[in-house]
Amino acid sequence: MDPRFFAKRAAALSDSSLKEVLETHPGIISFAGGLPDEQAFPIEQIQEVARRIATSPRAWQYLPTEGDPALREAVAEHVASFGIQAGVDNILITQGSQQALDLISMAFIDPGDKVLLEAPGYLGAIGAVQNYEAEIVDIPVGEEGVDPDRLAQAPQGAKFFYTVSTFHNPTGCSIPVDKRRELLEVAAAKNFLIVEDGAYRELCFDGDAQPPIKSFDTDERVIYLGSFSKSLVPGVRVGWVVAAKEIIKRLALLKQAVDLASNTLGQLFVLHWLREYGLRPPVELYKEKRDRALAALEKEMPPDVAWNRPQGGFFLWIRLPALLDATAMLSRARQEGVTYVPGAAFRGAPSSLRFSFSQVQPEEIAPGVERLARVITKELERARKRTSKSPVA
Amino acid sequence: MDPRFFAKRAAALSDSSLKEVLETHPGIISFAGGLPDEQAFPIEQIQEVARRIATSPRAWQYLPTEGDPALREAVAEHVASFGIQAGVDNILITQGSQQALDLISMAFIDPGDKVLLEAPGYLGAIGAVQNYEAEIVDIPVGEEGVDPDRLAQAPQGAKFFYTVSTFHNPTGCSIPVDKRRELLEVAAAKNFLIVEDGAYRELCFDGDAQPPIKSFDTDERVIYLGSFSKSLVPGVRVGWVVAAKEIIKRLALLKQAVDLASNTLGQLFVLHWLREYGLRPPVELYKEKRDRALAALEKEMPPDVAWNRPQGGFFLWIRLPALLDATAMLSRARQEGVTYVPGAAFRGAPSSLRFSFSQVQPEEIAPGVERLARVITKELERARKRTSKSPVA
Repeated sequence: MDPRFFAKRAAALSDSSLKEVLETHPGIISFAGGLPDEQAFPIEQIQEVARRIATSPRAWQYLPTEGDPALREAVAEHVASFGIQAGVDNILITQGSQQALDLISMAFIDPGDKVLLEAPGYLGAIGAVQNYEAEIVDIPVGEEGVDPDRLAQAPQGAKFFYTVSTFHNPTGCSIPVDKRRELLEVAAAKNFLIVEDGAYRELCFDGDAQPPIKSFDTDERVIYLGSFSKSLVPGVRVGWVVAAKEIIKRLALLKQAVDLASNTLGQLFVLHWLREYGLRPPVELYKEKRDRALAALEKEMPPDVAWNRPQGGFFLWIRLPALLDATAMLSRARQEGVTYVPGAAFRGAPSSLRFSFSQVQPEEIAPGVERLARVITKELERARKRTSKSPVA
Repeated sequence: MDPRFFAKRAAALSDSSLKEVLETHPGIISFAGGLPDEQAFPIEQIQEVARRIATSPRAWQYLPTEGDPALREAVAEHVASFGIQAGVDNILITQGSQQALDLISMAFIDPGDKVLLEAPGYLGAIGAVQNYEAEIVDIPVGEEGVDPDRLAQAPQGAKFFYTVSTFHNPTGCSIPVDKRRELLEVAAAKNFLIVEDGAYRELCFDGDAQPPIKSFDTDERVIYLGSFSKSLVPGVRVGWVVAAKEIIKRLALLKQAVDLASNTLGQLFVLHWLREYGLRPPVELYKEKRDRALAALEKEMPPDVAWNRPQGGFFLWIRLPALLDATAMLSRARQEGVTYVPGAAFRGAPSSLRFSFSQVQPEEIAPGVERLARVITKELERARKRTSKSPVA
């Protein structure tokens, strides 16, 4: 086939999926993978709910493009529990929240339009906006997420700012409540939308998560994305958008030609699960993993290595001394029997790395951190030797 | 929200979903709806297969973007049964074949690119290519589908020609085998791709369906789309693409940012269904409906009304005398207790209509056709009176 047939966006594609980095190998303890832990799926209850739904022919027929009406209502109730007021017409069910990102990009991005993304930030958001040929403007993420003052320096005319405001991917940080209000003020002053991705928000280990930016929104400036992938199961591919009616209407019209409708069984499963059990995210399991990770890091890491203490989610963020390069270190880490995703893969500092505690088994965490600490210590020694030998040092 | 935020494609959207036309009302016999008949779902076996799959945590986890590897293999075997040679790397599992249309449009269409669509033709294809701002060129569909000579007159530089080659939506026609070869020759000579949609092909009532255009393809010019929505159940949203490896690779990269992966349970359901039962499309039920429709049309329709005899699928196409307008006639038909979709909705002749026999119950077909014939007869009388009174007649 003549490659000139491809559209510009497809011709420019490269594989940024981290497939290789995420591969698991026997004997290697992985802090790379960011999927939910299958052990967290309450499989007996899940199976029981699925069994009952499957008996109805309706569970195998098409649903409306907007999603099952009762599920839309259930989502409205769910988001009300963290301060977002929404009617059924404000909600669209999507094929996971990744599809929400696709539809929003399709709805708002003309080629060359500016979009403000967190750096480091979620890879799937880069992919989604690149599919519509956006010009990406990086906004740096610090210990407390994006700083409103930095956002205020963004160039004029952006379409939207995308943020994983709570238990951020990849850093695990959450934006404090006062800064959330300020970010919204900046967006209003500079007249762009905020796309707030709350995929991890339900996985809160300590106290309550910060209220979403959307809960402060009085002029339909925020589009909120949610998902049952992390809080329940991902295979159903059920996410949602909360936005102004006019936005939901257009996203649904686009979705008609994108996939007609999301899958039925997944939607009915989530609906019946919510009705019978309530969401009940597997907070305890992930909290235990985080706590083990924090304890092991405290015990094992050499001085000058820093990390945060996320209140929830799947990830924490490790900052190595600036003379280390986490990408270059990866092959040595593998030799030592441990792996992670270098921060550079998310457009973060070369000396940073994402430490995921979602898939690793609890008993592997301490030995995994021990290996990682050993690699870092050796690399530091090596780097310091190199530096002291260097004539310009 | 400021409507200027919307991208051009979203600002231009209008609702072409036929929602109103497709609505069902008690007392109205509908030949409008084109969904599969839920009565055709073998619900006990379906439920049994679903029950077994649901017990595995894996059924609720993410799958690879390309689809479940074993399902891709099963699809390769399935398409081999009608003459398409494909390896696993030639196959992408999609969220129904509508998603295949979206991904293909995303991969090949830059704004303003020409795409050749059948007229009358499938509405979802118009929507998909419009989302990427294609320039649509209509190619007329006759009794035997698109004529190769008409395709040869298409303007230069088109990206692809989209055809529902077998049991066409909306007309029910199939392209004869010699013309299939000729269409492929035209595509090669004019250097565009063919996107062949075989969504209805498995529903063949009489003998064998024509071999797909893809089965004659020796230079990777044809992208073939298939679906389990019509031959099994639509709610799982499982379709597939067969194409050159390079195309599949890029479609999968795009899909990563579109929805990460299709739903797991649906894919595993189809895989296990194929393994345990084979596809077994509900041909008998739809054949009975078609036969009842043909018998009733023969018995009831006034002279000068013509229709085709589709060999399979969900639809047949009725041509009224040219002085009738099927859109204008629709409200009278509803008063008479019968409904259909006017051909104009698919960019067909104003005097044509789509007669769907997929959802209507068998015993309603004869009375429904009787009502339709009554409306047409009355409308013809009325139109002829008008014409004879008209001074210019």
